[in-house]
Amino acid sequence: MFEFLDSLGTLVFAISGALTAIYKKLDLFGVYCIAFVTALGGGTIRDVMIGRTPVGWMLDMNYVYIITIGFLLSIIFNRYLDKLRISMFLFDSIGLGVFTLIGLEKGIEYGLSPLICVILGTLTATFGGVIRDILCNEIPVLFRKEIYATLCIAGGILFFILKELHFEQNFISLAVTIFIIGFRLISFKYNWSLPSGTIFVRK
Amino acid sequence: MFEFLDSLGTLVFAISGALTAIYKKLDLFGVYCIAFVTALGGGTIRDVMIGRTPVGWMLDMNYVYIITIGFLLSIIFNRYLDKLRISMFLFDSIGLGVFTLIGLEKGIEYGLSPLICVILGTLTATFGGVIRDILCNEIPVLFRKEIYATLCIAGGILFFILKELHFEQNFISLAVTIFIIGFRLISFKYNWSLPSGTIFVRK
Amino acid sequence: MFEFLDSLGTLVFAISGALTAIYKKLDLFGVYCIAFVTALGGGTIRDVMIGRTPVGWMLDMNYVYIITIGFLLSIIFNRYLDKLRISMFLFDSIGLGVFTLIGLEKGIEYGLSPLICVILGTLTATFGGVIRDILCNEIPVLFRKEIYATLCIAGGILFFILKELHFEQNFISLAVTIFIIGFRLISFKYNWSLPSGTIFVRK
Repeated sequence: MFEFLDSLGTLVFAISGALTAIYKKLDLFGVYCIAFVTALGGGTIRDVMIGRTPVGWMLDMNYVYIITIGFLLSIIFNRYLDKLRISMFLFDSIGLGVFTLIGLEKGIEYGLSPLICVILGTLTATFGGVIRDILCNEIPVLFRKEIYATLCIAGGILFFILKELHFEQNFISLAVTIFIIGFRLISFKYNWSLPSGTIFVRK
Repeated sequence: MFEFLDSLGTLVFAISGALTAIYKKLDLFGVYCIAFVTALGGGTIRDVMIGRTPVGWMLDMNYVYIITIGFLLSIIFNRYLDKLRISMFLFDSIGLGVFTLIGLEKGIEYGLSPLICVILGTLTATFGGVIRDILCNEIPVLFRKEIYATLCIAGGILFFILKELHFEQNFISLAVTIFIIGFRLISFKYNWSLPSGTIFVRK
Repeated sequence: MFEFLDSLGTLVFAISGALTAIYKKLDLFGVYCIAFVTALGGGTIRDVMIGRTPVGWMLDMNYVYIITIGFLLSIIFNRYLDKLRISMFLFDSIGLGVFTLIGLEKGIEYGLSPLICVILGTLTATFGGVIRDILCNEIPVLFRKEIYATLCIAGGILFFILKELHFEQNFISLAVTIFIIGFRLISFKYNWSLPSGTIFVRK
């Protein structure tokens, strides 16, 4: 089940990257590259920083295959994918939840403290998109709009609270993922966003 | 012979980086940095991702010396280098071929699958230029123009086909390098380029 | 004493990142991220390239706490911090000196040659700012203005000269740090800057 959600998350992140690149009029290789880094960039940075090398996707061919599928779907169906915005948003939220969880667990596996694990979870889920935006020459949307990363942080904190309360591991994983996905949908519906860094500046 | 071509590739990539930086009116330190990352950025990312640390150029002073030479040549002769476009293009193609081969071989050395090795070869040859463009605040030219990376991928596939057919290692290295260099020259002559990601979009 | 200066440097680099992000109108998460990478980005790249993983800040919580303090100070007092330009400039110079020294020492610890150590020192002190500028979609100021990185290089060379002359380690550390800080202040007072890469081009 979890592997399936991981694959679904990878697929959707790859499609999101590919669509951005198509919109930016990159060539086919550029579209493939952006799909790749959007899906795997966050995990790659995480692995490199904790010393888990060769990085994960080099040892499991499925990631490359899934991204290739996402790339092909985007190239062929990009006009239709645009109309599937709501499904895409749902899948993207799933990716966000699952990737956060994977990052958290890798941090624990490497014996890092809870605070660092939360940072790693957030980074895994969000930095693929940051690299995508940098490669497309834009200020990362992550830093400007929507309550995206905040959800990963909140999910990470929930993870350690539940762990502290000795809940069963599978239950924690499920609860955190559902929490992130659920809150993403709610925050979108009510159009929440973080205040800008100038909140304390008198106008 | 091979070391010589590696050095030549490094030198030309450094010059290409330096000329871009000069054109962007960076100061001398900026020019040196861009020359450095253009020449060594691809190999550095590869080494970091497969866990080959300290990264290669830290253990072999020659790279730093060659880049320094490329930097000095660019600073002093930049007006003349511009007129050597054709020689530069030839050397750049040599760099492309040799760097791809080095990336492929490092991947094999680390026991990675052929698909991943092809990715590493392409990355070694092309990502120095990607970092150069990001530092100069442009969408990487790699993603927009010319059939550049595609040649590295084709060269990588040829590498594994020849290997499968049990050709001798030195012959394979030579064949792949010549294939990439030759095709680059032909593709330039006939002005080939990849279609953009919107090929399936009806206008 | 040295730990205190390291903390002070981290704090000031974090504030400098946060203020840039606030000025760019990023949201709170974006401001925090930019503060983080400005303070720790250089050291992270260094650690990853020499294979010192998990990277340093993951094993010492103080860094995260200090950056959080810098973030909060910037959010709340950003109008006043702007008026503290001179103190900030002084602290920033301290950070530059201390970070260069840390980078130099890590290089020696990993048995790298003096030339590579100087590169690592410079990178530790300056690349946080480079990542900050890339994330904010600007050509890194490091490559364009002020005699910033040159001081780190000069400091690194001084370090190895004093070492060669068998001075005591603590004295060397102090001398290099003071040299960098002092020269930064002097270069600022007299408005020195590096010539651009086009110095040899006749107009």
